[in-house]
Amino acid sequence: MLRTVLVANRGEIALRVARACRELGIRVVAVYSTEDRDSAVVRFADQAVHIGPGPASASYLNMPAIIEAARQAGADAIHPGYGFLSEDPDFAEVCQSNGLVFVGPPAKVIAQLGDKIAARSLMAAADVPLLPGSIEPLRNETEARACAEEIGYPVIIKAAAGGGGRGMQIVRDSADFLAAYRETTARAQTLFGDNRVYVERYVDHPRHVEVQVLCDQHGNAVHLGERDCTVQRRHQKLVEETPAPGLPEEVTARLGETALRGARAVGYVGAGTFEFLVDGNGNFSFMEVNCRIQVEHPVTELTTGIDLVQQQLRIAGGEPLAIGQADVTPRGVAIECRINAEDPERNFAPAPGTLEEFVPAGGPFVRVDTHGFTGYRVPGTYDSLLAKLAVWAPTRDEAIARMRRALGEFRISGPGVRTTADFLAQVVSSAPFRNATHSTALVEHMLNGTVRSGDAANAD
Amino acid sequence: MLRTVLVANRGEIALRVARACRELGIRVVAVYSTEDRDSAVVRFADQAVHIGPGPASASYLNMPAIIEAARQAGADAIHPGYGFLSEDPDFAEVCQSNGLVFVGPPAKVIAQLGDKIAARSLMAAADVPLLPGSIEPLRNETEARACAEEIGYPVIIKAAAGGGGRGMQIVRDSADFLAAYRETTARAQTLFGDNRVYVERYVDHPRHVEVQVLCDQHGNAVHLGERDCTVQRRHQKLVEETPAPGLPEEVTARLGETALRGARAVGYVGAGTFEFLVDGNGNFSFMEVNCRIQVEHPVTELTTGIDLVQQQLRIAGGEPLAIGQADVTPRGVAIECRINAEDPERNFAPAPGTLEEFVPAGGPFVRVDTHGFTGYRVPGTYDSLLAKLAVWAPTRDEAIARMRRALGEFRISGPGVRTTADFLAQVVSSAPFRNATHSTALVEHMLNGTVRSGDAANAD
Repeated sequence: MLRTVLVANRGEIALRVARACRELGIRVVAVYSTEDRDSAVVRFADQAVHIGPGPASASYLNMPAIIEAARQAGADAIHPGYGFLSEDPDFAEVCQSNGLVFVGPPAKVIAQLGDKIAARSLMAAADVPLLPGSIEPLRNETEARACAEEIGYPVIIKAAAGGGGRGMQIVRDSADFLAAYRETTARAQTLFGDNRVYVERYVDHPRHVEVQVLCDQHGNAVHLGERDCTVQRRHQKLVEETPAPGLPEEVTARLGETALRGARAVGYVGAGTFEFLVDGNGNFSFMEVNCRIQVEHPVTELTTGIDLVQQQLRIAGGEPLAIGQADVTPRGVAIECRINAEDPERNFAPAPGTLEEFVPAGGPFVRVDTHGFTGYRVPGTYDSLLAKLAVWAPTRDEAIARMRRALGEFRISGPGVRTTADFLAQVVSSAPFRNATHSTALVEHMLNGTVRSGDAANAD
Repeated sequence: MLRTVLVANRGEIALRVARACRELGIRVVAVYSTEDRDSAVVRFADQAVHIGPGPASASYLNMPAIIEAARQAGADAIHPGYGFLSEDPDFAEVCQSNGLVFVGPPAKVIAQLGDKIAARSLMAAADVPLLPGSIEPLRNETEARACAEEIGYPVIIKAAAGGGGRGMQIVRDSADFLAAYRETTARAQTLFGDNRVYVERYVDHPRHVEVQVLCDQHGNAVHLGERDCTVQRRHQKLVEETPAPGLPEEVTARLGETALRGARAVGYVGAGTFEFLVDGNGNFSFMEVNCRIQVEHPVTELTTGIDLVQQQLRIAGGEPLAIGQADVTPRGVAIECRINAEDPERNFAPAPGTLEEFVPAGGPFVRVDTHGFTGYRVPGTYDSLLAKLAVWAPTRDEAIARMRRALGEFRISGPGVRTTADFLAQVVSSAPFRNATHSTALVEHMLNGTVRSGDAANAD
């Protein structure tokens, strides 16, 4: 078992990882930027090491500073959380070459799955269904257009090195293809230093469904069911739930098996997520793998009773999985809402500031993951996630009622501070969400008035 | 279904009931004393009605004021929470005669079970095992002593109208019996206006195990498993858990069946708890019935997934139970600690005051029920319960580790404010608790040094 773990992250996920360490009897080392010196995880950890000034490039992305902190603190492992260095194969390698366990998959697996073209090709070989599209990188405009014509419009052009909604463009008409192709390759070069792109069929209004897997170093692997993350704004997830509502059990079973097949094919180790697009007929296609713990992991924990971060730490420590597929027996429904420090009335602009009042929701079947507390100054430097609110109930209708109750309980205020809590209450109260007929376009439709926002106060 | 419920209580349980109402779409009316005008439930409720000054006798025990508040607010039901008027058969009757549904058992059932002698006699008739002792009230000293001699010492003399640790005395020697008998009858007269007492065998160092039942108005009844409430200080529970550790399944199954038989025998309606003493050999004896929701109900909710307060409201609204015994499938282990505003270093004297800092625990598998928040002034007028911290885990060892982690997260401070959080961490870290070899004497033994307090920081 690991003895001392350095948590190379901040905010709620740093606290989440620290909690898992503490429960396993592992010593916790936090790292922090100057901006974060009064943060919750700094108070919680057994030791905290300053690694640089506010900007992430100087602190949470600063590999030498983090490795040096680990050395100073006597850490034997580093947990990267999500974002920052969590999916950087170079960081995984640097950890290893410094004698530190990286809590995540091997560097080679991260590299392969991070290259979307390589990932598509590996998944194709493992019989994981892909959207029609190119498997090899497109060599030139002619080849790219020929590929798009064969697939049929609409198509989406994606950067090989992209992911999470960055470096992609939809093309609905043959006449627009070349301009889009040129723009995407140029942008990919700028963003990622890699101009390779690929083309695949674009699915309008899909559902976004992902499967959680756990794989140990000894060849054992289980999946923990699926999560539906269809409610998004500009490719950023806002609401996640499990099980995926309205999806036949036969489909979710196949999703689970497919993800496991893919994980085994690439020699996956650790906690990972296979993301799929699902169309209205329950047909699914592979999208990407996230080689880390996900923001939305709590909903899986609430239905399965399995602590995913503890599992990550046990796997990284070399333990064989103590859970077999038969031990994964999800119960009920869990929903998570991401409460961001953003102003929905100003196009979700970040709205950080000092929290003069911060009262989280509580009570039955409510889980709150937050680094916020009364008096905490939310910095404007990082992402705007302030609290994750997850609820559990035997049925989806009850879970929605509970989510609305709990969202209404949050009291967050301070000069300049706004949150998305009320907006989220409208989302989960909207008819499409309640009826589970929504697609990834729900939020867009609510904001442009096509779908009436749920009346959070009176919807029944 | 009920439409508007008045919550005739305060503190965390008022908020708990209000949350259940909100989730069921029931309008919530809070009542409050002058002391409680800024309380959490007043902020949460749809309407709040002032019912009198601070002392409970003038507010939360003030039947006319509460009934008038219900009339004014258009409530169709009153939920009494626990304590205050929750087990007062007169209040149940007053509600009914004012056309209000009392969320609890019928007045007659409360009256019968509140009279410990009547309850013993009813349970004996229903084949519920009792401790050897008197069934009828003892008519005089001669009869009382003869009864004690027949049982064998030690015995306990209990007031018929007592309960919850009040109005009882242990006698270990025949020579002390008469003095104790006279004192107990006199005290019972003073405390309860009823000098009837009974005698039963006293069990040294028992375990305290109770069974949760739910009974509807249509004759359906289920039990929801047991809770172990062995960790007590002066008959006040401090730590509760489910399942009862170390108790064979055969015993817990019989406990459940026994409680259901008892509940059916008295025509019980609503949520109720049958309390038993269990000796080292798994023999159990009926102690009393609590005709209300219990402080420790969350542990049962965490393992069964059943919302007990919602069930109370549904039953009171006339719905048949939607849960059969086969639907009750408890999972894992849940533990609750009661965090009181008391100073363990000053013999647990109340330590109220303004909470300048109040940061509750959070994260995976943690539930907090509290009316506390930063800036809240804990009044000295009422009981000292400030927060209930409940955790869930697949196993008891993991639940204890999680409880220690979560207790350590609470940050509660303010002038004069002390809490029992650290003391509770020592209790759950102690060897007898961890090995489940503890009895109701654990806390006493910790305080007098017979048992070494668990080292909350370093115990493994």
